[in-house]
Amino acid sequence: MKLSEICEKLGIAYNGEEREIAGLNALQEAGQDEVSFLENPKYASQLSATNAAAVLVTASMAQQLPAHSIPLIVDEPYIVLAKASAFFAPQRLEHDLPETAVGEGTVIEEGAFVAKGSRIGANCHIMPGVFIGNNVTIGDNTILYPNVTVYRDCVIGRDCIIHAGTVIGSDGFGFATTKLGEHIKIYQNGNVVIEDDVEIGSNTTIDRAVFKSTVIKKGVRIDNLVQVGHNCVIGEFSVLVSQVGLAGSSRLGRNVVMGGQSATAGHLSIAPFTTIAARGGVTKNVDKGGVYGGFPLMEHKLWLKLQGKLARLLKA
Amino acid sequence: MKLSEICEKLGIAYNGEEREIAGLNALQEAGQDEVSFLENPKYASQLSATNAAAVLVTASMAQQLPAHSIPLIVDEPYIVLAKASAFFAPQRLEHDLPETAVGEGTVIEEGAFVAKGSRIGANCHIMPGVFIGNNVTIGDNTILYPNVTVYRDCVIGRDCIIHAGTVIGSDGFGFATTKLGEHIKIYQNGNVVIEDDVEIGSNTTIDRAVFKSTVIKKGVRIDNLVQVGHNCVIGEFSVLVSQVGLAGSSRLGRNVVMGGQSATAGHLSIAPFTTIAARGGVTKNVDKGGVYGGFPLMEHKLWLKLQGKLARLLKA
Amino acid sequence: MKLSEICEKLGIAYNGEEREIAGLNALQEAGQDEVSFLENPKYASQLSATNAAAVLVTASMAQQLPAHSIPLIVDEPYIVLAKASAFFAPQRLEHDLPETAVGEGTVIEEGAFVAKGSRIGANCHIMPGVFIGNNVTIGDNTILYPNVTVYRDCVIGRDCIIHAGTVIGSDGFGFATTKLGEHIKIYQNGNVVIEDDVEIGSNTTIDRAVFKSTVIKKGVRIDNLVQVGHNCVIGEFSVLVSQVGLAGSSRLGRNVVMGGQSATAGHLSIAPFTTIAARGGVTKNVDKGGVYGGFPLMEHKLWLKLQGKLARLLKA
Repeated sequence: MKLSEICEKLGIAYNGEEREIAGLNALQEAGQDEVSFLENPKYASQLSATNAAAVLVTASMAQQLPAHSIPLIVDEPYIVLAKASAFFAPQRLEHDLPETAVGEGTVIEEGAFVAKGSRIGANCHIMPGVFIGNNVTIGDNTILYPNVTVYRDCVIGRDCIIHAGTVIGSDGFGFATTKLGEHIKIYQNGNVVIEDDVEIGSNTTIDRAVFKSTVIKKGVRIDNLVQVGHNCVIGEFSVLVSQVGLAGSSRLGRNVVMGGQSATAGHLSIAPFTTIAARGGVTKNVDKGGVYGGFPLMEHKLWLKLQGKLARLLKA
Repeated sequence: MKLSEICEKLGIAYNGEEREIAGLNALQEAGQDEVSFLENPKYASQLSATNAAAVLVTASMAQQLPAHSIPLIVDEPYIVLAKASAFFAPQRLEHDLPETAVGEGTVIEEGAFVAKGSRIGANCHIMPGVFIGNNVTIGDNTILYPNVTVYRDCVIGRDCIIHAGTVIGSDGFGFATTKLGEHIKIYQNGNVVIEDDVEIGSNTTIDRAVFKSTVIKKGVRIDNLVQVGHNCVIGEFSVLVSQVGLAGSSRLGRNVVMGGQSATAGHLSIAPFTTIAARGGVTKNVDKGGVYGGFPLMEHKLWLKLQGKLARLLKA
Repeated sequence: MKLSEICEKLGIAYNGEEREIAGLNALQEAGQDEVSFLENPKYASQLSATNAAAVLVTASMAQQLPAHSIPLIVDEPYIVLAKASAFFAPQRLEHDLPETAVGEGTVIEEGAFVAKGSRIGANCHIMPGVFIGNNVTIGDNTILYPNVTVYRDCVIGRDCIIHAGTVIGSDGFGFATTKLGEHIKIYQNGNVVIEDDVEIGSNTTIDRAVFKSTVIKKGVRIDNLVQVGHNCVIGEFSVLVSQVGLAGSSRLGRNVVMGGQSATAGHLSIAPFTTIAARGGVTKNVDKGGVYGGFPLMEHKLWLKLQGKLARLLKA
């Protein structure tokens, strides 16, 4: 989409150089064909390093942009970003794409719906009630149990097992709230990438990224009723026990274990080989592997000690 | 159904005036064509103000009923109510109703099941695996992603988005327990009403009301794996983050934000513009907007202070 | 499968007596046609009492086996068990079994998928989008709402109601982790048995047993978004409120009530007529009925007292 067209739709006066824009992206990730935004003055220092073609910013921050980035000056950049996100949302379900390629030995059972333009490997089993959207890639030997939904553009590796009712690639929980308290949807134009040898339980939800990808790395094990928010990255061989909730942009290293009903706040990272005990609430980055628990989070042995102190307080 | 017939089925001797009864309802809500009940003597003062045609009560409380309400005297009113609720349960799926009306531009994909007697607006998208029961109303431009289930009699507004696997209108968790510990189902004969511009994530559950409606008001945003119990009312533009659990009859004002994994006990109200922090457990009415957290609930700044005190206790 | 064949596939040298092996099982449960394992030296005393045909053990514990149990000596018995579990996994979906028997008055709606070799009683209602796998047994008058998935070999009693999107019999969360941190799936070759008059809400998940059965006894009521792990046994008339999480092998007596978002750690038992308050985290066996709450678990009245102490601490 042409930059001039984007500006016109958003009501931004723009008579500068024309550029072809492929999509939206975060300031630090945006390429030369992408538009970005900055709302929070706290991150203004990131402006100078962006590669974005254009950036939605307030007037006061516009000067900090490098010469190759065009400032698109608006009062509320995040609200305008939300509006712009709709321009790049793909069609939910296209019927005029090439036939989906299906590998040898793959069985697609009656009652499964496989949209066009996808690629399914060899020896897969797609069970009844499964929905696979457009432009999905699935590797060899992967099994989708009944009533699994895979939204368009997602990627699933080989040797994966996804149990019944699980949803891969639904929209992340993203919106900009106006001063009047109304919410404007931020279209989630990224996807989910699941690497090889991942098993996911039943009725779990893994949201697609707002930009780029939510990533589940190889060998991960996810139990039932787990929530993985948009843009999370789950490291190799990590284990998420039932009812875990990962807020958006959580980053787990390899072999992290999250106990039942544990959770993270958003935008936090957890070091490799960390265990979060059941019910633990991760409220800050975990920079060093170990065993943690409690809410707010602490070393698990401190949590146990705290329970001892509370038991004594109770008797006092 | 005739009052005499209801009484006969329930084994209640009744020779009085005949009335036509449309359904059951709570004491304060019941109209002149409805039967109600009172079990708990604590609420006996509500008897005198009821409009109900007839009320299931114990002998000791019967005299407090107004003249227009017929006392139906029983030992265990709640158990008898449960039995009566079955008489008013509609058929799960009828095939002999008029064809469902579908507006212009609406696409119902192959593999969706739309029952008869419903009304779907214009430019909707009903994706594969969706189930829409009898007598459902859906407004214009609304999108139901794959494998969504909408039980009969529910109402969804215009410009709504409901993500995959979400269930609208399943039965509320209602039963009466006998002295022997067995549970008798209370049929949930109400519905769910979702107003305009509501987005709901994947694998969320919103139960139908026992009487009347569970209501999700306009502009609400609900994330994945959220539970909304029967008869809840969620105010305009409220936000429920993933894994929130609302017990039955919770009433949220407008622009309430419930953080991830937070929850309410039943029959509580939360003032407009209140934020409940992640994991907060609402154990009492919140009468004044603000930020709250913890379990039991307290002002969030007090919760933070408490964590500081506990940290000191730990070091002591 | 012949014992010699199992050993060959696992790379275990075995020239002893031939035996026909029907499956795998826990040490104390294994019959004379089953193979078992012991990894943890803590349970070595159980070896002498086993009936298993053969047991995967380390060399140091092999001598404690009775004469009728053949020791299969390996370095990592649990890892080898995981590998062996794949040999006994049934086909996911067979099409060449006898037609499913369907009782009089049962309605299977269009868009439901009923696999072969099953038995459905009379007057059942199987709604659109339901999947019923091979060799499932369903009693009379049972209702499966849309998009319910019942995995193969499960048993559901009469007069049951299962709401939309619920998954019965998905694989328990079982794997053995190698020294390199990779996870090897333990195939879950058991099933789920749901007795009569059970109601289960929407988007709940009940995992099949690794060996034998996960059991939901008669009259149980389970709400929405509940997780029941593999090999749990839920006693008669017990009640699980929304978002409860039961870890594997939890054993609940009759009329246990688990409040919203409460949970158990694995392998614990809860006495009959116990109530766990909302959010309670069961961290040890509950041997005596009563009301408990908090995390770690304590008597609920102590939990209330503790909250009072904390309120005073806050003011101090």
